[in-house]
Amino acid sequence: MASLQRVEETVSHEELHSASQAIEQACEPIAGSRKIHVEGSRPDIRVPMREIRQSPTYEGDTPRENPPLAVYDTSGPYTDPEAKIDVRAGLEPVRAAWITERQDTGELDGPTSEYGRRRAQDLATEKLRFKAVRAPRRALAGANVSQMHYAKQGIVTPEMEFIAIRENQKLEDARAVGHPMGQHPGQSFGAAIPEKITPEFVRDEVARGRAVIPCNINHPESEPMIIGRNFLTKINANIGNSAVTSSIEEEVSKMTWATRWGADTVMDLSTGKNIHETREWILRNSPVPIGTVPIYQALEKVDGAAEELTWEIFRDTLIEQAEQGVDYFTIHAGVRLPFVPMTADRVTGIVSRGGSIMAKWCLYHHKESFLYTHFEEICEIMKAYDVTFSLGDGLRPGCIADANDEAQFAELRTLGELTEIAWEHDCQVMIEGPGHVPMQLIKENMDEQLKWCHEAPFYTLGPLTTDISPGYDHISSAIGAAMIGWYGTAMLCYVTPKEHLGLPNRDDVKEGIISYKIAAHAADLAKGHPGAQMRDNALSKARFEFRWEDQFNLGLDPDRARAYHDETLPKEGHKVAHFCSMCGPKFCSMEITREVRDYAAKLEAEKGMQEKAEEFRQQGAKLYPEVP
Amino acid sequence: MASLQRVEETVSHEELHSASQAIEQACEPIAGSRKIHVEGSRPDIRVPMREIRQSPTYEGDTPRENPPLAVYDTSGPYTDPEAKIDVRAGLEPVRAAWITERQDTGELDGPTSEYGRRRAQDLATEKLRFKAVRAPRRALAGANVSQMHYAKQGIVTPEMEFIAIRENQKLEDARAVGHPMGQHPGQSFGAAIPEKITPEFVRDEVARGRAVIPCNINHPESEPMIIGRNFLTKINANIGNSAVTSSIEEEVSKMTWATRWGADTVMDLSTGKNIHETREWILRNSPVPIGTVPIYQALEKVDGAAEELTWEIFRDTLIEQAEQGVDYFTIHAGVRLPFVPMTADRVTGIVSRGGSIMAKWCLYHHKESFLYTHFEEICEIMKAYDVTFSLGDGLRPGCIADANDEAQFAELRTLGELTEIAWEHDCQVMIEGPGHVPMQLIKENMDEQLKWCHEAPFYTLGPLTTDISPGYDHISSAIGAAMIGWYGTAMLCYVTPKEHLGLPNRDDVKEGIISYKIAAHAADLAKGHPGAQMRDNALSKARFEFRWEDQFNLGLDPDRARAYHDETLPKEGHKVAHFCSMCGPKFCSMEITREVRDYAAKLEAEKGMQEKAEEFRQQGAKLYPEVP
Repeated sequence: MASLQRVEETVSHEELHSASQAIEQACEPIAGSRKIHVEGSRPDIRVPMREIRQSPTYEGDTPRENPPLAVYDTSGPYTDPEAKIDVRAGLEPVRAAWITERQDTGELDGPTSEYGRRRAQDLATEKLRFKAVRAPRRALAGANVSQMHYAKQGIVTPEMEFIAIRENQKLEDARAVGHPMGQHPGQSFGAAIPEKITPEFVRDEVARGRAVIPCNINHPESEPMIIGRNFLTKINANIGNSAVTSSIEEEVSKMTWATRWGADTVMDLSTGKNIHETREWILRNSPVPIGTVPIYQALEKVDGAAEELTWEIFRDTLIEQAEQGVDYFTIHAGVRLPFVPMTADRVTGIVSRGGSIMAKWCLYHHKESFLYTHFEEICEIMKAYDVTFSLGDGLRPGCIADANDEAQFAELRTLGELTEIAWEHDCQVMIEGPGHVPMQLIKENMDEQLKWCHEAPFYTLGPLTTDISPGYDHISSAIGAAMIGWYGTAMLCYVTPKEHLGLPNRDDVKEGIISYKIAAHAADLAKGHPGAQMRDNALSKARFEFRWEDQFNLGLDPDRARAYHDETLPKEGHKVAHFCSMCGPKFCSMEITREVRDYAAKLEAEKGMQEKAEEFRQQGAKLYPEVP
Repeated sequence: MASLQRVEETVSHEELHSASQAIEQACEPIAGSRKIHVEGSRPDIRVPMREIRQSPTYEGDTPRENPPLAVYDTSGPYTDPEAKIDVRAGLEPVRAAWITERQDTGELDGPTSEYGRRRAQDLATEKLRFKAVRAPRRALAGANVSQMHYAKQGIVTPEMEFIAIRENQKLEDARAVGHPMGQHPGQSFGAAIPEKITPEFVRDEVARGRAVIPCNINHPESEPMIIGRNFLTKINANIGNSAVTSSIEEEVSKMTWATRWGADTVMDLSTGKNIHETREWILRNSPVPIGTVPIYQALEKVDGAAEELTWEIFRDTLIEQAEQGVDYFTIHAGVRLPFVPMTADRVTGIVSRGGSIMAKWCLYHHKESFLYTHFEEICEIMKAYDVTFSLGDGLRPGCIADANDEAQFAELRTLGELTEIAWEHDCQVMIEGPGHVPMQLIKENMDEQLKWCHEAPFYTLGPLTTDISPGYDHISSAIGAAMIGWYGTAMLCYVTPKEHLGLPNRDDVKEGIISYKIAAHAADLAKGHPGAQMRDNALSKARFEFRWEDQFNLGLDPDRARAYHDETLPKEGHKVAHFCSMCGPKFCSMEITREVRDYAAKLEAEKGMQEKAEEFRQQGAKLYPEVP
C-alpha cells in the first residue's frame, strides 16, 4: 500500500491527504479484474495484463462459462495486490538487467548536467527531493543505445519481445468470443496490422521508423510499450503543475491515476517551481514512459525571457532530463524563422507554448532557431540515453479558422527533413500534430504527415472539431481523435474538460482519459485491429444476457457504470434483474427479443423454421429489386 | 416566471420542488445573451434568436466593437424575460392564425379517439389533467394539411418563411467576423446548401421530400423548424418516464431544460402510467416539435401483451395522439415477418423496443405486420393532422458485431418503399437509423439510406462507435453522430451518459444535449454550412484576446465554462487576466504570440518585414522540393 513522502513546503494538509488518498485508490485492483503476468522467453519478461472475470451464462439452470478477457494494462504494479508500493523508494527497475546486459552503457558519477549537479546539492529544495536516486547511466563512448539502433542491426531486444506479448493481449483466448471485423479498404496508406504481433514484427517496424519504443535507459521502471500505427492506438495524458496551482504529490498522484485508467504515456508539462524535483518523483514512480517539453524548463532558467535562451542552456537541460530518465522530448525544431510571419494573419496566431517561445527567440535575434541549427547535436544526446524525439508542432492551428494553413504545413515538411536526419543517427522519432481541425480537413493532416514524414508515427492533440465547446473540449476533440486514429495516428494526446479554462484536477484527468480510450478503441475497431472487437462482443453479450456486473466490469470505467446503474436501481437484486430503469420491467426490448428467439426456436422445431425463413427471404427479395 | 401545477398524486414534495426549480432555471436568459425577434413579411412571423453580446477589443485604450452574434434558439419563450410563463396555461399558440387562415381544417367536438374521449372523462386522473385544453382540429373531409402538400402546390406557408429566417441566423451580421470554410468535395451526394436560405428553397426541399417540417395542426405552440441535410443539423432529446421512476412535472421540466440547451425536437418516450396526461402537459408547454412512438402506448392498452395488439387499438392511439398535437410518430412499419429470423444469430438480437414488440406480434400470429399492411390507412391519418412519419429502424444493430447486417438493410429498403407510398399521400417522412456502428461502416449507412430512401431525411441514434463505454456512451456516440452528420444525416438523436444503465436525470439530459450540439455543429462546419464557422471564429478571437466573459458566453454552455475557469481562478480580476491556471501568468502562449505580432509589426515598419519574409519563404521553399 502506498505510503507517501510528505512534501510539506508547498502543500496544505488537505491537499496532501487527498493526494495520498488518490494514490491509495490507484492501488486498488480495478473492479472485477485481477492482474496476471504472461511470461516470455526468459523469466524476467513478465508482461502484465488485466484479466476481467465473467460470470456464466445460464441456460435454464445450466451454467455455461464465459472465458475471462485479458486487456492491455497500463496501471503498473499499483493495481497488483502482491506488489509492495512505496513512493519514497520508487518502482522496481524491471528493465535494469536488460540494459546492463547489453554492456553498451556505463554508470556515471552523478549527473553530468550543470543544473542537475547544482540541484542535487541545493539546500532549499533538500526537503522536496526524492532520496532513493540511482546513479544515471549513459552510452559508452561511441555507442548508440536506441531501440532503433538495435532494430536496424537485427537485434530483438527483451523490450521488443515484451511488447509483442503485450500487444497480443492473449488474443487466442479472446477469439472464442466473437467475430472480428474487416479492415477499412479506403484507409490512407493501408494498415499492415498482422494477425499476430511477433517480436520480429516489432523489430522491423522500429527499424523502419514506423514505430517507436520510448524507453530511456535511465527509466528502467517503465514497462515497454510501442507507438506505431500498426499497433494498438495509444493515448497520452498531460499532467503538470503551473505557477498558479498544484504540488509535487498531486502530480505523482495524477500520474498513478492517469495510468490506472489507461494512459499509455504521461507528459509532465510542469512550468512552476521545483520542476526538476517533481519530475524525479514522477519518473521513479511511473510504469509508463514520461515525456517532457525541455524548452519549458530552459525558459524557467532564464526567468521567462525567451530572448535570453541559448543553445548551451537548452543542451544542459536535455542532459539533465535525459539523465533523470525522460523517455521522449518534445522539440519544436520545425519553428523556423521564415515561417513565423506566416502566422501573422491567423485568428489565434501561435498557440503552442514551445512554438511561441521559439518564434519570439527567432524574431528577437533575427536568427534561425538554435533547435534547428543544432539538431545533429541534439541527436547525439538522444542516442546516448535513448530518448525518443517527439518533433513538436509549434505552429499547429489553435482554432478552426487556422487549420491546415501555410504555416502548419511548412513546419510539417521541416519535421520530415529532421526525421531523416534523426534516422541517420538511429534516433527514434514521432511527429506531433494538431490541434483544431474541422472534420473535413482531418484526413489531409494524416495524408500530409505520412507523405512528408516518411511514416514516422503521428502523435496528435485531439484535434478539436469545433472551437465552441469550452468545458466539453474532451468531447469535441475525441471526435477528431477517433477519426485521425482511424486514419493512422499512432498516439492521441488527451484533452480534458478544463482545456482552455484551467488546470485539470483528478476528475478531469479521468474524464479525459476515458474519452480518449473511447477514441483509441473506436480507431482500433475501425482499423480492424485483431482482437479489438472481442471486448465489445463480450460486453454486448453480457448486456444482452443481463449480466450487469460483467457489463460494468468489461467497460472502460466499471465504477461509473455501476454507480449510474445504481442511481435508480440500487438494490443487489436489480443486478440480476432483466431490465433497467430506462425501460422498466415490462418493456425491455432485450427481454422481448429473448422471447422472440425462444419462440423462433420452438417454431423451428415444430415446423422447420429454416425453410420458412428461406421462403420469406426469397419472397422478400422480390419486393426490392437490386439497384445497379 | 413559471408557476407550477402541482401534481400531488405521484410525486414527493422534494421532487416537485426540484422540478419547479428546474423550470424556473429554464426561465432565466442564458448567460450573456438576450432574446431578439426578427420579423418576417407579416407581424406575426416573429422569429426568435439568441443574441450573444460581446465586449470590445482594446487596442491600447481604444475600444473596437465586436458585433453581437445571433444564434439559433430552441428555448422558446422561456428565456424571454418579457414572456409570461404559466405551465398551467401553456404557451401562446403562435401558429394558430396560420392554421385557421388556411381554411382547410375544422374544430372538433372534443377528441375523436375512443381512448381520448374516455380519458377526458376519467375521474381517477382528474387531478393530473392539463385543464386549459383547446378543442382539437382535423383536416376537412378530403383535405390534406401537410406542409408537403402545400409545398408541392407551390405554396410558401408562413411556417416556411419562418424557417428561412431562422436558418439564416442573421448571417449578414456574422459574416463580418471571419472566413467561412469550403465544403468537403468527397461528401456523399454532395450538399446543396445555398449561401442564403430563402422561403422558396425551404418549399422546394419540402416538396422534394428532402426535408420535413414537423408541425401538427394541434401543436400551434411550436416554433417552426426544419429537418433536412441542406439545413443546420438538428438534434433530438428523448425524455419520458418509465414505470420505475419519474413524474409528469419532472418530464415537463426535462423538456424545458432540454430545449434551453438546444434540443430541436423532443421525443416523449414515456412507458409508465398516465402517459396520455404527461403528453398533454409536454405538448402544451413545448416550443419544439414533439415526437412519440405510439406503439408504446398501444402496448400499455393491452397490458404489455404484444400478441394482443390490433390495428384498431393502434389506429385509435394514432388519432388520440394526433389530436393532442404530436408532431411526428415513430412507426416501425419496416419490421416485416420475413426479416425477423434474420436477427436470430445476432449478438444482441432486436434492441429496438418497437421493433421487438412488432417482431413478437408477427411471429405469434404468423402474419405480416399490421403496420405494414395498413400503411396507407396510417397515411390518411397523418395527412389529416400533418403528423410527420419517422419510419423506425426496429431492426437496428444493438452492438458493433451486428452493424450493417442483412436484417438492418432489409428493413432499410422496406422503409424506402414505404417512403414512396407516403409521398404519394404528400405525407412528410424521415427515416430512423442506427445505433451501434464502427467508424469504418458509418458511411455505408448514409449511402444506403440516400440510395434506398430517395433522400428522405435521415435521423440517427448516435451511432455509438464502440460498445465498451457504459457511462460514457454520449461520447462514443457523439463521434459517430458527428461523422454521420457530416455525411448527410439531418437529425441526430442524442444519447446520454446513462444510456444502457438507467433513466437520465436533468444533468444527464444536459450532458447529452451539449455533446450532440458539438456533434451537430462539427457536422455543420464540415458540410460547409454558411455561417456555421462564424461562432467558432468569434469565440477564438475572444479567446485570443483574453475576453474571458465573451469566450464563456459564445460557448455552448457558458455556465460550465465559467465555473471551470473559476475553480482555479475565482477572482473577478482574473476574468480580464491575460492567462489561465493551465499555463500560469508567465507562460501563456497567446500572450507570447501577441508579443511576437507586435514585434513583427515593429520590424515591418523598420525594415520592410514583408520583403524579408518573402525572401525567407523562397529560401525555405528550396529546402523541401514539392513531391509530385
